[in-house]
Amino acid sequence: MGTTHPLRVQKKFFTFGDLRDGMVLDCGARLGPVTIAYETLGNLRAERNNALLILHACTGDSHVAGVYDDADERPGWWDAMVGPGKPIDTRRYFVICSNILGSCMGSTGPSSINPATGKPYGLDFPMVTIRDMVRAQRRLLEHLGIPRLLAAIGGSVGGMQVLQWCATYPELVKAAIPLATTTRHSAQAIAFNEVARQAIMADPLWRGGDYYQGEKPGLGLALARMIGHVTYLSDESMREKFGRRLLNEGGCFSFDFAGDFQVESYLRYQGKKFVERFDANSLLYITKAGDYFDLAPENGGLDNPAISGIRFLVISFTSDWLYPTYQSRELVSALKKRGCDVSFCEIEARWGHDAFLLPNARLGDIIRGFLDGLETEE
Amino acid sequence: MGTTHPLRVQKKFFTFGDLRDGMVLDCGARLGPVTIAYETLGNLRAERNNALLILHACTGDSHVAGVYDDADERPGWWDAMVGPGKPIDTRRYFVICSNILGSCMGSTGPSSINPATGKPYGLDFPMVTIRDMVRAQRRLLEHLGIPRLLAAIGGSVGGMQVLQWCATYPELVKAAIPLATTTRHSAQAIAFNEVARQAIMADPLWRGGDYYQGEKPGLGLALARMIGHVTYLSDESMREKFGRRLLNEGGCFSFDFAGDFQVESYLRYQGKKFVERFDANSLLYITKAGDYFDLAPENGGLDNPAISGIRFLVISFTSDWLYPTYQSRELVSALKKRGCDVSFCEIEARWGHDAFLLPNARLGDIIRGFLDGLETEE
Repeated sequence: MGTTHPLRVQKKFFTFGDLRDGMVLDCGARLGPVTIAYETLGNLRAERNNALLILHACTGDSHVAGVYDDADERPGWWDAMVGPGKPIDTRRYFVICSNILGSCMGSTGPSSINPATGKPYGLDFPMVTIRDMVRAQRRLLEHLGIPRLLAAIGGSVGGMQVLQWCATYPELVKAAIPLATTTRHSAQAIAFNEVARQAIMADPLWRGGDYYQGEKPGLGLALARMIGHVTYLSDESMREKFGRRLLNEGGCFSFDFAGDFQVESYLRYQGKKFVERFDANSLLYITKAGDYFDLAPENGGLDNPAISGIRFLVISFTSDWLYPTYQSRELVSALKKRGCDVSFCEIEARWGHDAFLLPNARLGDIIRGFLDGLETEE
Repeated sequence: MGTTHPLRVQKKFFTFGDLRDGMVLDCGARLGPVTIAYETLGNLRAERNNALLILHACTGDSHVAGVYDDADERPGWWDAMVGPGKPIDTRRYFVICSNILGSCMGSTGPSSINPATGKPYGLDFPMVTIRDMVRAQRRLLEHLGIPRLLAAIGGSVGGMQVLQWCATYPELVKAAIPLATTTRHSAQAIAFNEVARQAIMADPLWRGGDYYQGEKPGLGLALARMIGHVTYLSDESMREKFGRRLLNEGGCFSFDFAGDFQVESYLRYQGKKFVERFDANSLLYITKAGDYFDLAPENGGLDNPAISGIRFLVISFTSDWLYPTYQSRELVSALKKRGCDVSFCEIEARWGHDAFLLPNARLGDIIRGFLDGLETEE
């Protein structure tokens, strides 16, 4: 078979620090060495002023667009958005996407080897926050020789990182595009994350996080994914995609618990597929980082005065009930109060929270136009 | 201690059929003997025209109001609504509430003894539908000598039973009050139920449903309840009740997985409490009955011509996202097309799906007024 995708990318790794000279994390622990997996697309101009940092969501990775080689049949997770001639045009911008700290997709996380023991960290991995993730990204940018970002762009937990970049390093960010995100999790969002974590920890194969030598807590992790997945969709998109359609074409109920409805088998499939690619402990750590994240304006989260120099494009989606539009509106209003130049766009979309990941001409046009405006202004 | 509650009730049991002469269920199986636990309040008039049947929700029971004895400190689940002088006035109406078939609160269900084996049914219990539950209730009414109901009243899965009564025995129902319910589950509602079932079945202690001799699948059942519980609340009620408040009064994060937010410990507590009172297999069967239920107008679910003789009061709640108001509106529109006398009320309430269970003056007034109208019309 093979693919004819024109864009080839390579996963790279940047490692810094060691056991003594590592990162000091928000929790107080010291972590080192720290490896960050990343990919880049396009070329950095001599002026070094065309770098875009794309931040991925909870279970994403550095593979934002393109393919690794001829055998790679599945392009990166935002391939519709990023590439030559695409809204985030790699002929024009130098695009960086790094895998977050705590993940299992190449960056240091709980499944990495703990140099102190020679075994995977498991729960000995220190808790990491969104700010810790951003600090590690800052080290990567230094390594790549990028003095300032033209823009930080990301959705969901990636959008939290965008906001954290603005709060922590406002002078290093010219513009920011947080999509489908929030300044902090609602009680409902925390609740869904907590149920997902409990599902993992209730699996006896989880063994307190120390399962790397044996069987993985697959049932618990699949359950956690199923819960998350429902929150990423919307009532209307599920009605359209599945409705009450049965697996059995004859239209008869099974009258057992093997599954009758297509939506049931879809969720089971999503759960199973996720277990093949993701680490249960990483999901624990990253969901917790999301829950801890809090840049709420009333808590002073956006009070760094330099934030007023950043241009914002805030985007929400009508059917996103995980991070509903009202949360983006609160962000917009707080940024305006702080003197920022803010554009806000609520995009009509039925696909729920996941809408930001799906091909969407309007989303593409808006992002392309916003980035154009940054460049012409230079 | 003791209670001073003025209303004393007694749980009673009605048994019909035996192994040969049981109920034939929708799935084709024969079930017998069948026991239905029930409670009654008030007195049946000589004219036998003041009987109200109250149908409980998924994990409810026959204990709708009052207390069992002096030591009983927790009155029934709808005590705010049902009792002497209350909106459903037991000085005036003869109120019956029966525990549904398939439950574990006194009626025959998967935890009951299978007469064929002398052991609990477990998964040998046949699948039951909402219609099977209603058929068993019909047998109970015959036993109690009630020729016709003044009204059938119920919320959530209880509301499905109300609608099923109207579809199956329209001539036996003068009026119907379905609250916070739907003619059929959306794909999203099925999805949440399916994840809850998977949580139970993933617990190794579940043992294919054959756990009655040993330890119960408590972690799986608690998880299932936590998932359900989040869908019963609303974004706004959770924000109001918990927000992002921490367990630790010092305002520090734990940086571990023991739980930081009050909403987390609340959910864990709800899960644990539920395990003490409910049977995991019963939850499997009843959620499945809810998913199977389908009286969608476009499938002819409400086409029995006699349904036009029933007076309806349909009630929904603004913040109920499990069975949103648009689903009640579809029901109302279909009933009107079929010539029914329908009143519809969407009640402003922030408590989500659970709103129908909570004390609510407006809800009480509306139900009282509607019942009054039925009586004066006689």
